[in-house]
Amino acid sequence: MPEQFRNDSNQYTTVAPMLSVRNGAQAVDFYIAAFGAQVLFRLDAPDGAVVARLALGSSQFWVADESPEHKNFSPESLGGSTARMVLVVDDPDAAFNKAIAAGASVVRPVTNEPYDWRVGRVLDPFGHHWEIGKPLS
Amino acid sequence: MPEQFRNDSNQYTTVAPMLSVRNGAQAVDFYIAAFGAQVLFRLDAPDGAVVARLALGSSQFWVADESPEHKNFSPESLGGSTARMVLVVDDPDAAFNKAIAAGASVVRPVTNEPYDWRVGRVLDPFGHHWEIGKPLS
Repeated sequence: MPEQFRNDSNQYTTVAPMLSVRNGAQAVDFYIAAFGAQVLFRLDAPDGAVVARLALGSSQFWVADESPEHKNFSPESLGGSTARMVLVVDDPDAAFNKAIAAGASVVRPVTNEPYDWRVGRVLDPFGHHWEIGKPLS
Repeated sequence: MPEQFRNDSNQYTTVAPMLSVRNGAQAVDFYIAAFGAQVLFRLDAPDGAVVARLALGSSQFWVADESPEHKNFSPESLGGSTARMVLVVDDPDAAFNKAIAAGASVVRPVTNEPYDWRVGRVLDPFGHHWEIGKPLS
């Protein structure tokens, strides 16, 4: 096993967020269009609920329909989100514009920040926030 | 650049969640104790607010004090969370028990699930949920 996949307990360890949304099927389509996500796994339940594992470059995230009975709440249900996504790309301006074209809305345009990142922020149609940027040094 | 760091646009792309919490300093200490997280970057503001970038094995996540004025809400402020963390390890039982010993609470004990994962779920002291498991095949 490659060294970078071992932590201090010598275990294979990965962590990825699972975003709760209303209408997971539409959300998966949006993340493909907005960010170029690749679908690694997708389960469609008879009631239309979706669980999907997506790849963005070397990273992964999950998308699933909310299930408040299991404490999985969409941003629409809570009126905000408790985790934002930090998306690092070579060209934040292009990625930002692609997300907006796909239906995200501007929270902050892409600018050079005093903490030495070029970064902007968008709100996706499902209530999740994405910081899109890259370190400048 | 290694092939696995390129997406369909041939860009270097990574994504990582930034968890909003109350008391970021305590949260960083908890994630170190509970999951063996390694601190890659940490910024302490004069008011005590923290932004930290943590590694878990080959993955990363961020922790930051909430700032509702910027739409970054802790689970305590919203009464739930909109993203849960999927933590994959070699030994889910050991990782689960370590998290509980560090102060997390049991949501679901570790069991073999029909979708072919061995997985349990904990709630951390800051209101974020963690699925701790591994695929069985």
